[in-house]
Amino acid sequence: MEAPAQFNELKKRLAEYYDLNSASAVLGWDQATYMPPGGAAARARQLGTLGKLAQEKLTDPAIGKLLDELRPYEESLAYDSDEASFIRVARRNYQIATLIPPAFVEEVSNHTVMAYQTWASARPENNFAAVRDNLEKTLDYSRRYAEYLQPLDSSYQHIMDALIDLPDYGMRVDTVQGVFAELRAALVPLVKAIKECEPVDDSFLYQSFPGDKQMAFAREVIQKFGYDFQRGRQDPTHHPFATRFSAGDVRITTRVDDHHLGDGVFATFHEAGHGMYEQGINVDFDATPLGGGTSAGVHESQSRTWENIVGRSYAFWEHYYAQLQSIFPDQLKNISLEKFYRAINKVEPSLIRVKADEVTYNLHIMVRFDFELALLEGKLAVKDLPEAWNARYQGDLGVTPPDPKDGAMQDVHWFAGLIGGVFQGYTLGNILGAQFYQTALKSHPEIPSEIAQGKFDTLYGWLRDNIYQHGSKYNAPELIQRVTGGSLDVQPLVNYLYSKYGEIYHLNM
Amino acid sequence: MEAPAQFNELKKRLAEYYDLNSASAVLGWDQATYMPPGGAAARARQLGTLGKLAQEKLTDPAIGKLLDELRPYEESLAYDSDEASFIRVARRNYQIATLIPPAFVEEVSNHTVMAYQTWASARPENNFAAVRDNLEKTLDYSRRYAEYLQPLDSSYQHIMDALIDLPDYGMRVDTVQGVFAELRAALVPLVKAIKECEPVDDSFLYQSFPGDKQMAFAREVIQKFGYDFQRGRQDPTHHPFATRFSAGDVRITTRVDDHHLGDGVFATFHEAGHGMYEQGINVDFDATPLGGGTSAGVHESQSRTWENIVGRSYAFWEHYYAQLQSIFPDQLKNISLEKFYRAINKVEPSLIRVKADEVTYNLHIMVRFDFELALLEGKLAVKDLPEAWNARYQGDLGVTPPDPKDGAMQDVHWFAGLIGGVFQGYTLGNILGAQFYQTALKSHPEIPSEIAQGKFDTLYGWLRDNIYQHGSKYNAPELIQRVTGGSLDVQPLVNYLYSKYGEIYHLNM
Repeated sequence: MEAPAQFNELKKRLAEYYDLNSASAVLGWDQATYMPPGGAAARARQLGTLGKLAQEKLTDPAIGKLLDELRPYEESLAYDSDEASFIRVARRNYQIATLIPPAFVEEVSNHTVMAYQTWASARPENNFAAVRDNLEKTLDYSRRYAEYLQPLDSSYQHIMDALIDLPDYGMRVDTVQGVFAELRAALVPLVKAIKECEPVDDSFLYQSFPGDKQMAFAREVIQKFGYDFQRGRQDPTHHPFATRFSAGDVRITTRVDDHHLGDGVFATFHEAGHGMYEQGINVDFDATPLGGGTSAGVHESQSRTWENIVGRSYAFWEHYYAQLQSIFPDQLKNISLEKFYRAINKVEPSLIRVKADEVTYNLHIMVRFDFELALLEGKLAVKDLPEAWNARYQGDLGVTPPDPKDGAMQDVHWFAGLIGGVFQGYTLGNILGAQFYQTALKSHPEIPSEIAQGKFDTLYGWLRDNIYQHGSKYNAPELIQRVTGGSLDVQPLVNYLYSKYGEIYHLNM
Repeated sequence: MEAPAQFNELKKRLAEYYDLNSASAVLGWDQATYMPPGGAAARARQLGTLGKLAQEKLTDPAIGKLLDELRPYEESLAYDSDEASFIRVARRNYQIATLIPPAFVEEVSNHTVMAYQTWASARPENNFAAVRDNLEKTLDYSRRYAEYLQPLDSSYQHIMDALIDLPDYGMRVDTVQGVFAELRAALVPLVKAIKECEPVDDSFLYQSFPGDKQMAFAREVIQKFGYDFQRGRQDPTHHPFATRFSAGDVRITTRVDDHHLGDGVFATFHEAGHGMYEQGINVDFDATPLGGGTSAGVHESQSRTWENIVGRSYAFWEHYYAQLQSIFPDQLKNISLEKFYRAINKVEPSLIRVKADEVTYNLHIMVRFDFELALLEGKLAVKDLPEAWNARYQGDLGVTPPDPKDGAMQDVHWFAGLIGGVFQGYTLGNILGAQFYQTALKSHPEIPSEIAQGKFDTLYGWLRDNIYQHGSKYNAPELIQRVTGGSLDVQPLVNYLYSKYGEIYHLNM
């Protein structure tokens, strides 16, 4: 069956929607990198206008009509054809968008811009009082948003189900809770065992390590990984992110500390992982609903693969450590590869999620997931959040934030968007990263030895062919099934962590 | 009379239009500064979409209806009230926009994006053949555009009249020709007299002058001028420009040569002049038709005032030369202020417009103006342009471009937009700059002595109060009348050039 005129009309209309979104992404990137302070007020209005116009484009009843008229065509196609996938994903996006009143979208957009700015200035001052009212409003918006989304799927049972289903298709509160419980059961004894070990000495990482040299090294590495600077760039920012304007322009941002070796480098690997995913998507999916990563969890699986599974592996540093030593000879000349490897993988329960090690990281996420749930359910009041946060950190990680800056105010998420469904993707990403990597090793057992030679082509190619190129063509459960032959599985991550950290800490578990 | 509901509705609708334009400006700035090469194709499409949507917003018949309904309100207001000016300028913009078919706008937009990219790669290779077809198409589009605009004013007599009237309100081919002839009659003997003088030695400007030091100096100066970095920034680019996203975010871009002192510094002063104009506009005019400079000529008058009248004045360097010497001690220690001042004001007929001195600069513009006319009239074929260009340069300036890069391909304008009405504004700017400055001196004869002390508040304040703040509230002839009490006058520029260069070259004219 030849593509009917409606198909091209739908593509044309949606391309406008995606172009508006890309323009918003450029304005957002600029806001986070180079915009002067005086630009803030007008930029908020401009982003509001672009968001409103995009929403109007997507929810135009003409789109619904075209989607209806395209049903016979869609049904004549193979499920996994690009055309059927285009229509299928467009339909879901249309369903979601038409459930939300435009005035609500605009209101939330204005609110979050303002809430973000308030947080950005209040956080350094530890001023939770300044963000409290905003956060209560955000919580109210989040509940209303979830209510609007209820008709999307009759299987929703919990107010947060829809908020999880959107970024992580097919997941529900109870599935996430089940997965998290299983992972927690494995992590708690591992953390306990490590705590009883002699602490790893990583003090040598805290010296002068000029940021530009760290970044030059990291840039060279991510190019070797597969990140393409002809189709991307890297800029400094406060809160690192990756952003896509097209398959040919996917940018990453990083922050680097001149007095610490590591965070800036690994954050670069991390964002490059997100970036390679987006750069690897079929360029024909540009300006279509397929032109983006398929879920929060799958996206994060790629950032964590390149940051941790590759970037913090012994094999990787077998190749790269000598080069790093030559960049920082005074600081590293007396530090052996083994000592360095242990230091960058030091496990230590701590306050800040983004600086957490691989083992305790998921405990940080579980705190947040549970608090999202409690806030949405009304079991936790916003005013009690800082105290509850501190109590939970003391209980789960044995550390208490000295102030809200490093406690309940540390993450940008609740201050730059809604509450609910925001955090589970990070741990799903860790789980999926390990699961995909294990699958890749089955086909290509040579990958670790290639990494030890500074070669990443086999791994990159496998990920590109099996995951990246498909964009959003398959939803996450479909993709996991296609790639691994099964469904989400915690075991590869548990095996990976037990094996790696069992060796580092000489555990016998 | 209280503002009727239609007034607020019109403001709201037009704000969306201006927000889309500002978004395009951000995408354009990014394209010219930081965009990776891979982003070009999608960026062109995104800019096309934004342009198309903006055009749709502006030409929405609802705007026309609102403008009609607002006539009684407008007539109840003082002509120079913000509200009446808003409606008046909006109406003209609406008239212009509705004369152009949307499909044509989109076609031209796609064409010019592509033509620009072709030019950018063809120019360094001196490949005129690569741009010829595009240029012919551009010429055709320019003629069609001019045709569409004919109904705007019944006084149009020449195909280029409308193309001039849009950027430089009230000007026509014959008025520009008259003004240019008058100026030319004064310039030709001045250039001739200077050519007969001992050439000024500026060889010391061609040494190593690290670009970052030049830029740091220039940045310090423009802040003193009045350019506000809290509401702007400066970035490197290939073809310097200033761009406005809002009154709070007006950016400039510059290119600097590590082996030449001057161009980068004066280009910074130049773009800062454009930037100060835009930063100085009443912030309430943001996202309205009044929120931008009123004409090409008035805009250029400000860049040229700060670049030349101030920045290349003896008074200015009386204050700043010692500082410049301290930045480049090895290069400048043996160069006296007098020698430096003469060098940066060296008059020498040359190939490149943007590097031309104040005296010959306008001859470069006249070449381009005449060629725009000849191309549009069909008296010059695109294929004959390089040769005609070279012949004219030989005749007017006594120099022949060795290749098209420095000849007919040197300026971006015809390769990034239409042909016609593009260049006269530069010379009108020189004329107006001198005219406004002379008017300022009448009220504030102390300005030159303040400049000699590195103080610019009086001049900046006068320009802001008399010109900048009004944005597009008054059209150029109205503004000139209000500021100077008269109309466009070549004499102040002629007097300025004769006096300044008469002194530098010890002429007796």
